Amino acid sequence: MPFSHLTHLSCTKCGKTYDPAALLNVCKEPGCGGSLFAEYDLPRLSREDTASRDRTIWRWHELMPARTPEDIITLGEGGTPLLHARRLGARLSLPDVWIKEEAGNPTGSFKARGLGAAVTMAKALGAKAIALPTAGNAGGAAAAYAAKAGLPCHVFMPRDTPKVFRLECEAYGAKVTLVDGLIDDCGRIVAQRKEAEGWFDVSTLKEPYRVEGKKTMGYELAEQFGWTLPDVIIYPTGGGTGLIGMWKAFDEMERLGWIGAKRPRMISVQAEGCAPIPKAFAEGKDVSVRFENAHTYASGLRVPKAYADYLVLKILRESKGEAVTITDDEMRRGVNELASSEGLYAAPEGGAAWEAVKKLLAAQKLQPTERVVVFDTGTGYKYID
Amino acid sequence: MPFSHLTHLSCTKCGKTYDPAALLNVCKEPGCGGSLFAEYDLPRLSREDTASRDRTIWRWHELMPARTPEDIITLGEGGTPLLHARRLGARLSLPDVWIKEEAGNPTGSFKARGLGAAVTMAKALGAKAIALPTAGNAGGAAAAYAAKAGLPCHVFMPRDTPKVFRLECEAYGAKVTLVDGLIDDCGRIVAQRKEAEGWFDVSTLKEPYRVEGKKTMGYELAEQFGWTLPDVIIYPTGGGTGLIGMWKAFDEMERLGWIGAKRPRMISVQAEGCAPIPKAFAEGKDVSVRFENAHTYASGLRVPKAYADYLVLKILRESKGEAVTITDDEMRRGVNELASSEGLYAAPEGGAAWEAVKKLLAAQKLQPTERVVVFDTGTGYKYID
Repeated sequence: MPFSHLTHLSCTKCGKTYDPAALLNVCKEPGCGGSLFAEYDLPRLSREDTASRDRTIWRWHELMPARTPEDIITLGEGGTPLLHARRLGARLSLPDVWIKEEAGNPTGSFKARGLGAAVTMAKALGAKAIALPTAGNAGGAAAAYAAKAGLPCHVFMPRDTPKVFRLECEAYGAKVTLVDGLIDDCGRIVAQRKEAEGWFDVSTLKEPYRVEGKKTMGYELAEQFGWTLPDVIIYPTGGGTGLIGMWKAFDEMERLGWIGAKRPRMISVQAEGCAPIPKAFAEGKDVSVRFENAHTYASGLRVPKAYADYLVLKILRESKGEAVTITDDEMRRGVNELASSEGLYAAPEGGAAWEAVKKLLAAQKLQPTERVVVFDTGTGYKYID
Repeated sequence: MPFSHLTHLSCTKCGKTYDPAALLNVCKEPGCGGSLFAEYDLPRLSREDTASRDRTIWRWHELMPARTPEDIITLGEGGTPLLHARRLGARLSLPDVWIKEEAGNPTGSFKARGLGAAVTMAKALGAKAIALPTAGNAGGAAAAYAAKAGLPCHVFMPRDTPKVFRLECEAYGAKVTLVDGLIDDCGRIVAQRKEAEGWFDVSTLKEPYRVEGKKTMGYELAEQFGWTLPDVIIYPTGGGTGLIGMWKAFDEMERLGWIGAKRPRMISVQAEGCAPIPKAFAEGKDVSVRFENAHTYASGLRVPKAYADYLVLKILRESKGEAVTITDDEMRRGVNELASSEGLYAAPEGGAAWEAVKKLLAAQKLQPTERVVVFDTGTGYKYID
């Protein structure tokens, strides 16, 4: 059996397919530019086959893109805990609420999953350097995997991003450029310069493999609940890669015969100061409009327009989900509650997701008996002062 | 088969045994005060039985103290990666060198293992509040598990400990007292006040279970190397609980038939500014003398006299190990190398352990073909500014 069953890439907009042996960004059809998904010839693989493997994202290597074990650049990403929030759940009369705690990943956030996969594939397919825009944690993750891979890394971040996010990139040896603007302005600079500089652009959903790394959160959730899925998943959404990845994982697992057809309601959480997805969702739009004057202290949520917003919005609708906005003050309250009652020092994004539970309960969009998973996407230690 | 095979506690100094149903600190024999070890009636348990269990410290529950699954207070501690340091190893012509990366634990350090176990047992055995001295990471870990357990937590730390260590404790709801002195001065305050206040003292090696949590590093290492042990383990040593715990684990695993009689050389690393163990080791002493004017930026190494120094020194000698001192400048260099070449943003303690590799090589106390494990005991993010 081959190590990976990857067969081709397919465009999520127009369906055009590509050979995965080439280093690709997005669909090349004129006027398309859709995000590419990795497609697999599904292996005969049982859940039990994977049970005793190492708890990294490469545990499901048959459904991952690396062609050989030697290609893998790993810092041990994935295999994060799913914690029963008993004390806070009791307070809300929502006894079956859980936190998927992503803070323990390398570089302190879920970004390690996506960038571990992307850097692995970039290196394997011949990239000589990588570049990306970041609103916060993605830069450090990219820089760390690039260091491990021996690849130069160029990070572009808004000038007003908290200093810790710059310092970590520099510690990992990346070249950081501060930009007067937001993450999409940074992304434009990468796009303009990459050809001349020889950089491979690892912007989220502008290359096929970050979503593959992130989809492993879906595999882990299913396993941690004994191969069932929860009723509701509450997910703080910047670029939306994890939400998109998990939805892809659910389909793969159903085709593998590992889970049934039931799907969770997917809830996207954004900041009140930067809420393109809730706005588009409320207006019934298929794509979002750039959110002007975007502001929130949750760096990871300061994404005024996600490249694959069309996929996020499609999943929210298909899953009968919701999109929720949370203020920065509410996030701070959420962070405090998670720390003092559950022992988790969450990132503001995690605090936002927790506060969304309360909003959904108040709006009767959660039932007290439902099983709910809240994502804490990163450590709060980067924000401690 | 019972969930835990714990049978009794025994004093590591005088051998006196105790019933583990009571909440105990140290040996009560007049003039003894030895650290207590948990002893088990070894189960019939194969390595394969544990292969597909969750990767927490409770995976080896037969050899852990919690009496029932319901007793366990967990934040998902343990199951950390063992990473091959290929790039740095190549540079040193030491190709088989590995990093046991403890930064991904809850609260960002290996302290989560010990305090997860200690708080679990304190709560199960009826403690109403816990208290401890800390030089750095132990406070946050204790506070987080206490929050999860719903127990009040009282933390005593030197006034000049970096602010992040106080802030995290307070976020987890602990009461922090800053003390003009070092960790042993803090420990004295806990000892003086605990009876009147009704606190259970979870100082390291002054209760039996932190060492049980820490020993799981030894189980993990053996499994990660295919049930063999490395030739050398390099361990930054404050209180020394992990070194003591791993040595205990090796004996348990040999009695279980999981590993053979071979043992690694155990290398204790301390700061030049606080080196009671290297000093006592060099002088052939069985116990250390308090190190005066202790100073180092590696908070976790600022322990002028460890309570169980006699156990650390015994293990160093039994294993034909060493004790090494590292300056703060060397630690900073080690941190930089690990970040820029291996993608690991280590704590200064991890930087110290890495620098010890070079010192041992230079002194021809490591052979180029040996398999070496270096412990990075916590995240560098708490030190980033």
